[in-house]
Amino acid sequence: MKIIVDAFGGDNAPDEVIKGAVRAVNELGVEIVLTGDKNKIEESAKKLGLSLDKISVAHTSEVFDIHEEPVKIVKTGKNTSMGLGLKMLHDGEGDAFVSAGSTGALVVGSTMIVKRIKGVKRVALAPLIPAEKGQFMLLDAGANNDCRPEMLLQFAIMGSAYMEKVMGIKNPKIALANIGEEETKGRELELEAYKLLKDSELNFCGNIEGRDIPKGDINVIVSDGFTGNIILKLYEGMGKFFSNKLKYILSGINGKLSALLVLGKIKAFKKQMDYTEIGGSLMLGACRPVIKAHGSSDANAFFNAIRQAKKCVDGKFIDEIAEAVSKTTGKERPQNDE
Amino acid sequence: MKIIVDAFGGDNAPDEVIKGAVRAVNELGVEIVLTGDKNKIEESAKKLGLSLDKISVAHTSEVFDIHEEPVKIVKTGKNTSMGLGLKMLHDGEGDAFVSAGSTGALVVGSTMIVKRIKGVKRVALAPLIPAEKGQFMLLDAGANNDCRPEMLLQFAIMGSAYMEKVMGIKNPKIALANIGEEETKGRELELEAYKLLKDSELNFCGNIEGRDIPKGDINVIVSDGFTGNIILKLYEGMGKFFSNKLKYILSGINGKLSALLVLGKIKAFKKQMDYTEIGGSLMLGACRPVIKAHGSSDANAFFNAIRQAKKCVDGKFIDEIAEAVSKTTGKERPQNDE
Repeated sequence: MKIIVDAFGGDNAPDEVIKGAVRAVNELGVEIVLTGDKNKIEESAKKLGLSLDKISVAHTSEVFDIHEEPVKIVKTGKNTSMGLGLKMLHDGEGDAFVSAGSTGALVVGSTMIVKRIKGVKRVALAPLIPAEKGQFMLLDAGANNDCRPEMLLQFAIMGSAYMEKVMGIKNPKIALANIGEEETKGRELELEAYKLLKDSELNFCGNIEGRDIPKGDINVIVSDGFTGNIILKLYEGMGKFFSNKLKYILSGINGKLSALLVLGKIKAFKKQMDYTEIGGSLMLGACRPVIKAHGSSDANAFFNAIRQAKKCVDGKFIDEIAEAVSKTTGKERPQNDE
Repeated sequence: MKIIVDAFGGDNAPDEVIKGAVRAVNELGVEIVLTGDKNKIEESAKKLGLSLDKISVAHTSEVFDIHEEPVKIVKTGKNTSMGLGLKMLHDGEGDAFVSAGSTGALVVGSTMIVKRIKGVKRVALAPLIPAEKGQFMLLDAGANNDCRPEMLLQFAIMGSAYMEKVMGIKNPKIALANIGEEETKGRELELEAYKLLKDSELNFCGNIEGRDIPKGDINVIVSDGFTGNIILKLYEGMGKFFSNKLKYILSGINGKLSALLVLGKIKAFKKQMDYTEIGGSLMLGACRPVIKAHGSSDANAFFNAIRQAKKCVDGKFIDEIAEAVSKTTGKERPQNDE
């Protein structure tokens, strides 16, 4: 298995990418191709005292600027480390692609360069989020501001396939993010999506309100990308808020003594809430696995994103999505926006 | 000052309402009228050993069912404890109204019975939410699923007036809930609302992402009611999630010892995050203050909601809103939905 990794995505590139990649090669037994400036990669490896023996480099000198219009990823093509990685993935020169670069560009690139699974209307940004019980997948977490009901149904199909094939959850529980549990709650979008989900073969458990999201009773939560992005980032922000509070409570002499008494539990909690332990966000709907690592990823986060990429390839969930999506085609209303 | 209180709203009516009302009469020096079944109120007071000397009762035998269609509050009129309270407020038989009953019915009642401030397009549900620094107001938190940009501008005007006049914050900071900080982020709604807010006389600080909401740097956050409701409830859910985690960390022998060492800080944190200490959610845009207390309110929460009602009357923020709204009229596009 060969995983393509953008060596110049994220705040800590290329050092942390290289460290994560070297560890992945050794521990996971995958092949890795790093995309980006060969000289800089070799310099960084030398500085870090790491061997690139089992890692190949696909050279390109430029980096896709995170502030650039996402759509430009299509034109810059092979000239940037991200664009080259996407192109190689499309051409079958690797089985999955990991990048910590621009999310928007990865969405566009997954759609236009890697291409979508046949029948899939939109690529969705799909992070796994830590909850009180296990993790849940949220999609769309920001790829599509405005969605149609059929898109939400497809998100549910894709998320369900992922959770079943990659995460090993039988018959994953699906819910629709909404402002009330009743079928009559929400906007036109939720009312229509509810019907489609109810009529589907999915294990649809109805609407989920904001207050129940952190419980983790549901495996896949679907929403339009605007709402999903608000949920994702508020979730992150609340996590930060509480970890600051916990730090404050456990500061000072009494606090430090107090922390010592419960150190194991605090460490376990921190690990549970650590996004980077889970990996990155999937670009669900692309023909091959594309994973967005967090912009602030360190070596451990890159390692986990590569591990997730390997699990994606092993899980063969994309065939599952293709089949499930093909079954629903024809049931939907005709649309002209493809 | 006379505050009307729905004695039969919420899960703990009428006992907790009466306890909160009696405390308010004694500590805040306000007059209180309880609406609802006089016999039941007197029975409850007797059972609790409380004197109703300084409290009057406006009798009506029925209660507006929380599962009923909100719009029915208009028809049931004076026959329910909530409907009677709204009618009395409209007729000037009280200065503010507090109820822990159906939120939807209170929105409809504030609009159709109490009536809106001249020029205000929609009544918004506006809770105060505890944050890392102080509190912020979020509106609309659920009264209007779909909003137009002009409505978001009005929400900002109303929230600003409230925070300035009632909460004593000079030149309140306003932000628009969005998926990115840049002016170009969001849906059509956010793009248009951003322009209106930027052109207004408000202290508009741009977009706020989910991750920055809990910081409390902003005093008023505006959004459509769907997004706001998701934010409000996720915020509550995350609070619950972390308080459960904290409880777990501080359980067992070591945990209990640990908790003892930092008891003061934990108590202060719990108090800071306690919604019921703040009061209820305003129905901003109504001609007179209407406050929705939490459905699970206890005596302390009712007391705080009544205290908030008093602050609203003292703050005279409604005149401020009327004036500010009148200034913006004419700047907007014509609409036919009033």
